[in-house]
Amino acid sequence: MVSELHASEWLNSDKALSLADFHGRVLVVEVFQMLCPGCVSYGLPQALRIVQTFAREDVAVIGLHSVFEHHAAMTPVSLRAFLHEYHITFPVAVDAPGTGAMPRTMAAWGLEGTPTLLLFDRQGQVRARHFGTVPDMGLGAQIMSLVAERDGAL
Amino acid sequence: MVSELHASEWLNSDKALSLADFHGRVLVVEVFQMLCPGCVSYGLPQALRIVQTFAREDVAVIGLHSVFEHHAAMTPVSLRAFLHEYHITFPVAVDAPGTGAMPRTMAAWGLEGTPTLLLFDRQGQVRARHFGTVPDMGLGAQIMSLVAERDGAL
Amino acid sequence: MVSELHASEWLNSDKALSLADFHGRVLVVEVFQMLCPGCVSYGLPQALRIVQTFAREDVAVIGLHSVFEHHAAMTPVSLRAFLHEYHITFPVAVDAPGTGAMPRTMAAWGLEGTPTLLLFDRQGQVRARHFGTVPDMGLGAQIMSLVAERDGAL
Amino acid sequence: MVSELHASEWLNSDKALSLADFHGRVLVVEVFQMLCPGCVSYGLPQALRIVQTFAREDVAVIGLHSVFEHHAAMTPVSLRAFLHEYHITFPVAVDAPGTGAMPRTMAAWGLEGTPTLLLFDRQGQVRARHFGTVPDMGLGAQIMSLVAERDGAL
Repeated sequence: MVSELHASEWLNSDKALSLADFHGRVLVVEVFQMLCPGCVSYGLPQALRIVQTFAREDVAVIGLHSVFEHHAAMTPVSLRAFLHEYHITFPVAVDAPGTGAMPRTMAAWGLEGTPTLLLFDRQGQVRARHFGTVPDMGLGAQIMSLVAERDGAL
Repeated sequence: MVSELHASEWLNSDKALSLADFHGRVLVVEVFQMLCPGCVSYGLPQALRIVQTFAREDVAVIGLHSVFEHHAAMTPVSLRAFLHEYHITFPVAVDAPGTGAMPRTMAAWGLEGTPTLLLFDRQGQVRARHFGTVPDMGLGAQIMSLVAERDGAL
Repeated sequence: MVSELHASEWLNSDKALSLADFHGRVLVVEVFQMLCPGCVSYGLPQALRIVQTFAREDVAVIGLHSVFEHHAAMTPVSLRAFLHEYHITFPVAVDAPGTGAMPRTMAAWGLEGTPTLLLFDRQGQVRARHFGTVPDMGLGAQIMSLVAERDGAL
Repeated sequence: MVSELHASEWLNSDKALSLADFHGRVLVVEVFQMLCPGCVSYGLPQALRIVQTFAREDVAVIGLHSVFEHHAAMTPVSLRAFLHEYHITFPVAVDAPGTGAMPRTMAAWGLEGTPTLLLFDRQGQVRARHFGTVPDMGLGAQIMSLVAERDGAL
């Protein structure tokens, strides 16, 4: 079980969100940095494909901007322009500052780096975390297996 | 419901197979021609990714070589070399000759061309057919939704 | 003939450079914005391939960071981190502010947007400008045709 | 210096051709097998890009179908259909049978396998041979450097 998501700010959302807001749906959290090449080339485009593939009532996608290096280069001002230019319209949480270079949620969740994709089931339990790249077909299957838990699990 | 698969020959299999042999599993049939560029670039590599992604006890993949043009160019002799060079090891049925240019199974199933991917559920019912390209993520999800019918459906 | 390059700052260079510094060599100027998706996906990787393909004594590559939108999001602080993360080691000029949103060199050169790639011959004359994407093979040929002017032209 | 090209048959040409027919132009010879995956994915598409990039009066492109395995699978009948399906319209020589599995021209030229791309200059001298893949940019540059020898060399 992971702790709550700690955001200092939300973009693409008119209010702060919490993990509980997504209970009942499968939740995909794409953890990224806007200047991380693997996030730009693989992670974020894949997150957008998830949005296009699954029904909104079954699967929610959010981003978590977890900056652990070049902090001055990836401020919310820059992030906002980045999201606009890359047509990313799902909600993005700015991970709150931590006690060191690593932001608070990233540290609490024990993440290794970016991009990392986490899958939460309809009860809000973490069921998978992928650091780096993961093929679309297997990821699509994995998300669908969580979607299909609907009836039995709730 | 589709009719039985009519094969004049099977490659990568020591015996003739029928659709019934796959009941209990999800069956993917990749309909292709060895000289069809879309089959070589998209359809067959995707079929191989299906093999790699799903457990054999849940999902079976077979090919159906349905030649409807250039018949003399795509004989079983050429097909056998093709399968070897492209490392395709799943069973491949050579679609039996029909009354015209179109082979028998392709005509019976009313297929439009190649590549076509068909999905059969665990009861042997056709549940999807994709002519042309289909994205990996959605296809992976679709296959998994059939896999997940296990308990309720059988 | 184009006017001089007006830079408010140079990165990856220990001194300010001018077009004249490259006379005698073919000069490639990659005009980009760090948050321009086409620059990140196509323009800058292609510029790096130019560096890898041609001898340094024949072809020089520099970047020109011409920000005409989201100015607060693409400051030199952010650009410096971007260059580090994307392993861009060739000199990059920060286009000097202009009278409007468009920076000074970009306006003087009449550029349409980013990415734009300009080719200067060994005498410093602009010989080609490509806005958007241009295939590698033709670009490699075009650069080589300027390289080959060596003896006749100087 | 390489020996003459030995063809048992020419496709996409109404007459037999010889290397001398291309003197005065740069000649690209794409050596391939129709069932060689690297030829289909890389070599032949690259040869088509060469046709599109360079002027016909400067650069000629031909194929050499050098079958050294699966001979019965890659007969001229199959090759003809292959060229049609892959929209290859440049002349293709069928390499003549040799004394062993390797065809005659391939053996005489000492080629290692397919795909191999050979570049001949305007005087008919071999100037480069690439076995496997070669990046477009460098290849475009290399071809252009031979094209540019026009005046000095003839």
